[in-house]
Amino acid sequence: MRILGIDPGIAIVGFGFIDKEGSKLTPVQYGCIQTEAHTPTEERLLQVYEATLQLLDKYKPDAMALEKLFFNRNVTTAFTVGQARGVQILAAVQRGIPVAEYTPLQVKQAVVGYGKAEKKQVQEMVRMFLKLKAIPKPDDVADALAVAVCHAHSSTLNNKIAEVLRYD
Amino acid sequence: MRILGIDPGIAIVGFGFIDKEGSKLTPVQYGCIQTEAHTPTEERLLQVYEATLQLLDKYKPDAMALEKLFFNRNVTTAFTVGQARGVQILAAVQRGIPVAEYTPLQVKQAVVGYGKAEKKQVQEMVRMFLKLKAIPKPDDVADALAVAVCHAHSSTLNNKIAEVLRYD
Repeated sequence: MRILGIDPGIAIVGFGFIDKEGSKLTPVQYGCIQTEAHTPTEERLLQVYEATLQLLDKYKPDAMALEKLFFNRNVTTAFTVGQARGVQILAAVQRGIPVAEYTPLQVKQAVVGYGKAEKKQVQEMVRMFLKLKAIPKPDDVADALAVAVCHAHSSTLNNKIAEVLRYD
Repeated sequence: MRILGIDPGIAIVGFGFIDKEGSKLTPVQYGCIQTEAHTPTEERLLQVYEATLQLLDKYKPDAMALEKLFFNRNVTTAFTVGQARGVQILAAVQRGIPVAEYTPLQVKQAVVGYGKAEKKQVQEMVRMFLKLKAIPKPDDVADALAVAVCHAHSSTLNNKIAEVLRYD
């Protein structure tokens, strides 16, 4: 199963593709989509949308996972990030790829096992799970991989629950 | 010149097309796009996107105008509205239609001539400008028409400034 994790934004969109076989996680490709500050918003949204479609078509993930909300940021940021997030969700649904959303708390719990974990702890666990030599930079990329790992762990859990329901 | 005004949202998206010839404004079509509460977000975003494209292709506006921000609403709402707004802006840019954004203050100033005008005053002025028998319902539709009228007045102003700059 291939999972695309996304850290949404308009200036920098982090993305990370990982493959999951059993409990083994392998990084496939990660990086970020960047748009220029002086470009009109509508043009930047188009760039994010088209870059997302290109990534989906190239790496063909089975699921896309995004962080659900940034409660600590302000309304203007939420609005701007929301717009960019909207076009990425649209790209996924147009390609028939299921979209999963996780709160920062869920990401921390799934990756570190502790909802109040520090950002650094999350990044270090992601690095270990994916056997990377260093924590990917910038943070947006590390965060995107964290959401992908969160989805991998959560879907394992969901599969286990499904099995229990089926066979018990 | 045909203008599409949008009051963005995910449950109800108000829209209003108006034609502007000189200082004369004529309503062309108005109403709202609605999505069901129990439908997954990604599906609702796709519905808003596709309905917007259909409207653009049917009524072929020369410009699209949206309200810029809702400072008084909370972060979660801003995020949700932002996502829906993102796919509508994307639809416009994909059809080569320029997008204009106005703050609620700008809408009130352009429509009533007074930035602190009441919602009812704005709606009543829109009704008068467009020679409608009654204020359109729900509020989302009236708000969409208000943004369209705002853009009509603002572009008149901009044209006048351009003329002054050209001929003075």
